[in-house]
Order: sequence, then C-alpha cells, then structure tokens
Amino acid sequence: MSIVAVGSIAFDSITTPSGARENILGGSCTYFSLAASYFTSVRIVAVVGEDFTSDYEDVFRKRKIDTKGIEHVKGKTFRWGGRYVDNLNEAKTDFTELNVFENFQPRIPQDYMDSKFLFLGNIHPSLQATVRQVMNGVQLTGGDTMNFWINGTRPELLQTLKLINVLLINDTEAKMLAGDRNLPRAAQRVLAMGPQALVIKHGEYGATIFFREGAFGIGKHPFRAPALPIEQVQDPTGAGDAFAGGFMGYLASQEDINREVLKRSLFYGGVMGSFAVERFGTERLQKLTREEIDSRFQVFRELTHLE
Amino acid sequence: MSIVAVGSIAFDSITTPSGARENILGGSCTYFSLAASYFTSVRIVAVVGEDFTSDYEDVFRKRKIDTKGIEHVKGKTFRWGGRYVDNLNEAKTDFTELNVFENFQPRIPQDYMDSKFLFLGNIHPSLQATVRQVMNGVQLTGGDTMNFWINGTRPELLQTLKLINVLLINDTEAKMLAGDRNLPRAAQRVLAMGPQALVIKHGEYGATIFFREGAFGIGKHPFRAPALPIEQVQDPTGAGDAFAGGFMGYLASQEDINREVLKRSLFYGGVMGSFAVERFGTERLQKLTREEIDSRFQVFRELTHLE
Repeated sequence: MSIVAVGSIAFDSITTPSGARENILGGSCTYFSLAASYFTSVRIVAVVGEDFTSDYEDVFRKRKIDTKGIEHVKGKTFRWGGRYVDNLNEAKTDFTELNVFENFQPRIPQDYMDSKFLFLGNIHPSLQATVRQVMNGVQLTGGDTMNFWINGTRPELLQTLKLINVLLINDTEAKMLAGDRNLPRAAQRVLAMGPQALVIKHGEYGATIFFREGAFGIGKHPFRAPALPIEQVQDPTGAGDAFAGGFMGYLASQEDINREVLKRSLFYGGVMGSFAVERFGTERLQKLTREEIDSRFQVFRELTHLE
Repeated sequence: MSIVAVGSIAFDSITTPSGARENILGGSCTYFSLAASYFTSVRIVAVVGEDFTSDYEDVFRKRKIDTKGIEHVKGKTFRWGGRYVDNLNEAKTDFTELNVFENFQPRIPQDYMDSKFLFLGNIHPSLQATVRQVMNGVQLTGGDTMNFWINGTRPELLQTLKLINVLLINDTEAKMLAGDRNLPRAAQRVLAMGPQALVIKHGEYGATIFFREGAFGIGKHPFRAPALPIEQVQDPTGAGDAFAGGFMGYLASQEDINREVLKRSLFYGGVMGSFAVERFGTERLQKLTREEIDSRFQVFRELTHLE
C-alpha cells in the first residue's frame, strides 16, 4: 500500500568528527521517503525553492518516489547548518533559514488521495491536522513532532494527537510532552492524549513501542528493539527520520497491522536508522538493496535473541 | 559453583523523588551478593566497623551468604550520602566517609579458596590484582571499576585488566577507559587491554556484551539485553551492582560458560537490576523468590523477542 509523507526538504551544512559537507540534500521528508521507498511506494508533499534543481529531484525519482506533491515556489529552499561536537546524539544548530518552508501549506495532489497510510512529519500541528482531515480515507496515520511545537503550540498539538494513530518521538520529547521524567509513565500519559501506539526513539539504544490497552492486539507490555552498536557513525543527521521511514514503510507493506507486524516495523526502523548514519546526508539511503536491509534485520534480531 | 565477592559494605543516606532514607545497608558487595545469592552460593570479603551489628549481618545470613570474610575493625563503617534530583540515572554525592574502608586489605578466608568464580568489586586496582593472585585457582574472574581509578590509577588498572575475564562497567567508564566516545570502538579497545568479554551497562536501556574474537565461542557480534521500562523507580542506588550480581551469579550456576549462557546471564543481570530499583536500598533484593525472578526473565525475553 502506498504512503503519503508530508515534511521538509532542505539543504544541510553539517560538521561531524568525520568531516564536513555543505548544502547537501536533507530534510525530514527526504530521509523518511528514501528509507520507506525500500518497502512500499511513497508519495511526498513538500516545498522547495528555485535552487532545488532536477538533479535533486532525480534522487527521489530513482527510488520511484512520487514527487508530484513537491511544490516549487520562488525563493530559496529551507537551509539548516549544524555540527556534532562532543556528542553524536545531539546537534548544535549553526543556522536555520526557513526560506520557502516558512509559508509551507501542504497541498495533496488528487491522485494521492487513495493512499491508506499517511506520515505527518515535523511541521506545525495545525498543518498536520489539516492534512489528516483532507486525507480522510487513510487507515493509519503516523506522526512526528518536536520540542518547539510541544512548548509553543501545545493546544494545537493536543488536537492533532487525537488524529494520529502512531506517534514517533524521542525520549526528551516524550518526557516534555507528558510532563513526567519517568519514561513508561510518560508513555502512558501520551497514549491517553490520543495515539493507539507510541514509539519512543532512544538514539543509539534503539526504540520502544508502547500500546494503548487493547490497541493492535492484547497485552500490556511494551516492546523494545535494540540498535546495533555502530562503529562508523559519520553523520547522525536524519537517523530519526530514516527510522520513521523504515517503520512506516514496512508497516504500509503489510496486509494486517497487528502487534507482531508493529514489532518487526520497529526493528526495520532501527535498521534504516543504522544505515542512515554510516555516511553523510542521504548517501547511504540512496543506494541500498532489500537484501542488505534484510540481512541487517537478521543481525538486529540476533542481537537480542535468546535460544 | 560458589563465587567469592570482594567489595564494600556501607551505610547509605539517600534522597530520591520518592523519599529519603538514612543509614540504610548498602555498598557494592551488599547489592552484588544479595542479587547473586538467588543463583549460587556466595562468599563475601569486606570490612565493617563497630556500628555494623549482627542485625545487619543477618541480612546476609538469611540469604545464606558466607560472611566469614567480613572483617570487623575499630571505627565506623563506610558511609555515603547522595541524592537523585532531576535525573534518576545520576546521583549527586552529598558526602563520602570512607572510615574503615580507607585501609581495606581484603583477606580471603582459607575455605573460600576452592571457589571457581571471583568478582572484584570497585576497589583500588592493585587490591583487585592481589586478590586475584591469591585466589589462583579461579576459573573466571569478573570485575568492576570506576572513573576514580580510570583517571587516578591507570597503570595499576591496566595491569589488573589482564587478570579479569569479564569486565562490567557503564557507558561513561568504557568511553573514558578507551579514550573513545564511540561505544563499539571503545569496547574493542577495552577488550584489547585484557578481558575476554566486556559488559557495558546502559542503565535504563539495558546492557551490551562485547566479545574478544574467539572468546567463549565464535562470531564477532555483540549481544544486547534490554531493560524493562520501570514505572516505579524508588531508588536507583545499587542497580549496577545488582546487575553484576545477577550476571555473575547466574554464570557461576552453569556447568559450561559459553555465549548462550553469557547472553542469558546478561538478561538475569537486567532482571536483578530492575528489582533493585523498585524499593529503597536492598529492601527488594532481600526477599525475592526464584519464581519471581524467572517470571521477570520471561517478560524481559518477550520484550525483544520476534516470532
């Protein structure tokens, strides 16, 4: 089944202990869609400026990602600059130029409307809600958010959370959203806000999925997928978005959405996140094979599998 | 098989968001031995002062821990005070009074000498080395250390690491010891210093065991055991020592030490750590049953088990 992904396309300037790159293709929608494209057909909705040439669009086309929903407007594409100094888990932002992204109003092409899966990337919660309302035929909606919206637009975010089936955020965001520093308690509070499932991403430690009682099956226990310890982390940018792409992409490729499928999705999320960080930007995500992906899935599975 | 554990017995004064306790029984050897006592017979070597009355010794005796190696000397027992404010993963120390622990010279009772397993708790690396040399019949030695020794007595520590088969430390310690902020690279560097296996404890995210090539079996992949997300963390003190006790205790109870056994040990370590934090001090570790322990082991296994 196809999935529609809404989010940002950006040009990133990144410095890590492994080197530096200027103006490379990035953005949440880019990482997400490349990662998801190995599992299902992906249709994206984003906005770019005049500096987004067809060479860049080819990156998506080569992965058969539908780019009809990329809106081209006057001005420059969103740019972000950041560096990872002491800690590869946290970027220090050098600059953020929203440019054309500042007035982004997602428009869903008519022939995207039959998609049954939707991923609402990290944009203003009111825009997320509008997209979800327009796409009223979707079966399952995944969503992301961030500290900026949790603190700055909380009432709007709380409305949007009622429309999201699976929320994917990190530890800090979950604790901030819930106002509770204990992770499992925070998870229960976030689930009470709307989502049936909550994926909390722990960076290099993997991710945990918490379920609302009765959602997607029975049982009260969460499920945790580890991350493979990676020796060569070149650039952590986009790892969370690649995780979401692997998770949602695998999910959208399945007939039935149940807990076993959600567990495997969590592992595939970790797998795609682990590939993303091995090279700068989207380099690694552009040319994987499904065989490489499934082989790493097995390594991840072995990583915690007891006989 | 019995295990000899060397380390500290202390009285702790602890404040956490759940409350406060004064002068409760603690110390690395205490948490370790209580946790290990559910799997194998444990013999301890420690030093206490005149304030360590027989009521305290009964805590060990009730778990059939051999206390012959507790040396009673003039003065006060080691005391530590600390609090967990914002972050349950990190204690702020209020005071440390080494007292009788300052001049601790571990003495191994003669009838401990037939033990095949040894755990060297977090003491001066030269003392660790001496104990290991005295106990020259042991099959497997586990050890712990901390930042204080890594920075302050590095040459001595490097000597001791050659005598340790399985080192158990946390993320920060591993990175500091290796001088590398990348965890799997740090692990390889630490393994090159001597140990055949390295267990890195990630607190609420579980633990990973890294193997030296060819040690305990074949294969180059590490293994990770997750930790159960715990809603009610009353007191994180001793979680790492309880982890080590569960890990070493289960290990010592097995005929053959191979990778499958080490993997299960890692899970049992996580299980004992998770029990430790549910109540203040050693309260929970004093009265568990093997059934409770194995039932939680199953929950941990399910937590990451894919069909």
